[in-house]
Amino acid sequence: MGKIAIMGFGTVGSGIRDIIKKQNYHAEEKVEIGHILDIRDFSGDEDAKLFTKEFTDILEDSEITVVAEAMGGLHPAYEFTKELLLAGKSVVTSNKELVATYGVELLAIAEEKNVNYMFEASVGGGIPIIRPLATCLAANRVERIVGILNGTTNYILTEMFQKGKTFEDALKDAQNKGYAERNPAADVEGHDACRKIAILSSLAWGKFVDYQDISTEGICEITAEDVQYAEKLGCVIKLIGYAECDENDKVFARVSPMLIPKTCPIAGVDDVFNAIMVTGDSLGDAMFYGRGAGKLPTASAVVADILDCLRHEGTKKHYRSWKVSDVPFMKKTEESRVSYFVRTPEDYDKVKAVFGEVNRIDAAEGTAFITPIETEAVLSEKFRALGNITSRLRMLDA
Amino acid sequence: MGKIAIMGFGTVGSGIRDIIKKQNYHAEEKVEIGHILDIRDFSGDEDAKLFTKEFTDILEDSEITVVAEAMGGLHPAYEFTKELLLAGKSVVTSNKELVATYGVELLAIAEEKNVNYMFEASVGGGIPIIRPLATCLAANRVERIVGILNGTTNYILTEMFQKGKTFEDALKDAQNKGYAERNPAADVEGHDACRKIAILSSLAWGKFVDYQDISTEGICEITAEDVQYAEKLGCVIKLIGYAECDENDKVFARVSPMLIPKTCPIAGVDDVFNAIMVTGDSLGDAMFYGRGAGKLPTASAVVADILDCLRHEGTKKHYRSWKVSDVPFMKKTEESRVSYFVRTPEDYDKVKAVFGEVNRIDAAEGTAFITPIETEAVLSEKFRALGNITSRLRMLDA
Repeated sequence: MGKIAIMGFGTVGSGIRDIIKKQNYHAEEKVEIGHILDIRDFSGDEDAKLFTKEFTDILEDSEITVVAEAMGGLHPAYEFTKELLLAGKSVVTSNKELVATYGVELLAIAEEKNVNYMFEASVGGGIPIIRPLATCLAANRVERIVGILNGTTNYILTEMFQKGKTFEDALKDAQNKGYAERNPAADVEGHDACRKIAILSSLAWGKFVDYQDISTEGICEITAEDVQYAEKLGCVIKLIGYAECDENDKVFARVSPMLIPKTCPIAGVDDVFNAIMVTGDSLGDAMFYGRGAGKLPTASAVVADILDCLRHEGTKKHYRSWKVSDVPFMKKTEESRVSYFVRTPEDYDKVKAVFGEVNRIDAAEGTAFITPIETEAVLSEKFRALGNITSRLRMLDA
Repeated sequence: MGKIAIMGFGTVGSGIRDIIKKQNYHAEEKVEIGHILDIRDFSGDEDAKLFTKEFTDILEDSEITVVAEAMGGLHPAYEFTKELLLAGKSVVTSNKELVATYGVELLAIAEEKNVNYMFEASVGGGIPIIRPLATCLAANRVERIVGILNGTTNYILTEMFQKGKTFEDALKDAQNKGYAERNPAADVEGHDACRKIAILSSLAWGKFVDYQDISTEGICEITAEDVQYAEKLGCVIKLIGYAECDENDKVFARVSPMLIPKTCPIAGVDDVFNAIMVTGDSLGDAMFYGRGAGKLPTASAVVADILDCLRHEGTKKHYRSWKVSDVPFMKKTEESRVSYFVRTPEDYDKVKAVFGEVNRIDAAEGTAFITPIETEAVLSEKFRALGNITSRLRMLDA
């Protein structure tokens, strides 16, 4: 019998309770919930007696060996997690912001205390990705990660492609369906995907990638015309969390909309689904697909971490973690190489004068073309020289 | 420093050596190869001094804690693995036949001796599936597994769909490319996929599923007409390893070609790629995609298991394993429920007399229709009553 506590009784926290109480899965031993921490009143809940508003009830209960943190936000989730780890309890979480911001410190404390800090649910909701990346792909040098990491924006883009909606209409629809928040900035501006690609990059290459160093663009600028041209190119547009590591161990990460050829496996990932494609030097491309959010999918990943902690009590799992690098290792956006699809009101002579002969796409007005693969610095320069640009979208080199 | 041995220096065994020597991945500690067992002569190899023909060189070397078995076949792989586990060494393998046949016994010995028997590479080559199923999905009740588990047959079917080839021509092409063996029976008759779905089923539901109890059909009967009708239905045909567990914990497993709607994520899995879609009660559908075979992909999964064993030396990983069930739990084929797409030279009146009103498909000659979902027993009876059947294919209920 393992005894655990839950901190935060929102969507994920209540999902964790539900799954544990259902006990509808194989487990070597039963899991019992000792405490549920939430500042709100749950005196009418079926488990009213388990609720507490006092963090110390969990911290000081020596029977509790694993705590699920589903509070969200940085504070007091950070302080609580740190105290629990220091007290020798394992902590599992779905809190991507906390892992992306303080993961490097919390993982170090867990290692020192020989306990676990696990975060399978922080990226991709219920999709197994953290553990496969850390263990199954351990014999690979990860070369690239391409992820559809945010379900809300993927739903919006799918509606724009499949039903011809504008961004605004698709967003409203997503809000009405409860997929997008009233203030959708964290999703549509790419901040959520940014935290997640920061976590995946840190894990893949063992060095702390600060999400603040990741260039992040959202999907608010995508228009119906962009969608039409994407179709013409045999592509879809996806908000992509992108990261790569070159032969010199320089890491580059970015969040932005990208044109994805329909032949690429992640192009078919629609609606609120997420997918992460990982390229390893031995494995080639592998893809992980599923529900990237939602109460039960996310909670099931947290409970899997709980079960894993309980099975390995007293022996930390030696998850591959990440450390702050002594030397700079992040490539700047300007140094990264990419190709753009560009629409401009300028004529082709002007385009040719700046870019040379390019792959030209039939356009209703002005000129549409694909740039060669160049550094962002060189391309910026050329975009400035070209003058007016109606739209530009990066292309995934599949 | 961990010291390991490799048994069998064929495609996978030499891949394991190459990856370990390259050491191109992050690992807490270096891995050293102590012995390579093979009955053939490798005196000209760069690692000639490591080769031995004597199994006891490995068994009796107390420095060797982990052994990679890449011999293939049942004997002597079984005897060697058993002796190594009994001697307190962990064993990792890519040998699906051995895991499907003797896994239940070998896992029990590993548990008793507090060592590991790991087999990530036995299903899906380099695709992470065994560990995610055993750990990441541990809080889910697995409801269904639908897998494209054999790259050779998937290549053949892809060629038939995309290039209009006949089965015979596509098979010849696969043989010329080295994807299919001279004697392709194990692949095209479904036996390889059968071993793999047996392993996945055993792992998902904790009870030994004997591959000999799994009804297995191959793809040799698929014709160009079947392909045309599949297109008409908005489907592709895939060789599917299928398994499900109902509310009464009855398990059903089958290998057969199936019609898969193009809207289903696995429908787009082409060429030699494999994919496994797992449905969990909390998670919904998750899919794992990648290279299901090949030297380096498969070897990278074996090396990941080696690294995991070394990290956890002295503490068995408590992989969810499987046991022989005391009570019968396998559903017979006749009891399983499915719908068929049928082509018959009979006219629609005859079809209606046997099946009632059915979903009829426009046919060049005779009648084409989709049966209701019924048990295979009922459907067999009706197929007999109908008389002539040109072709019938099960449909995946997506």
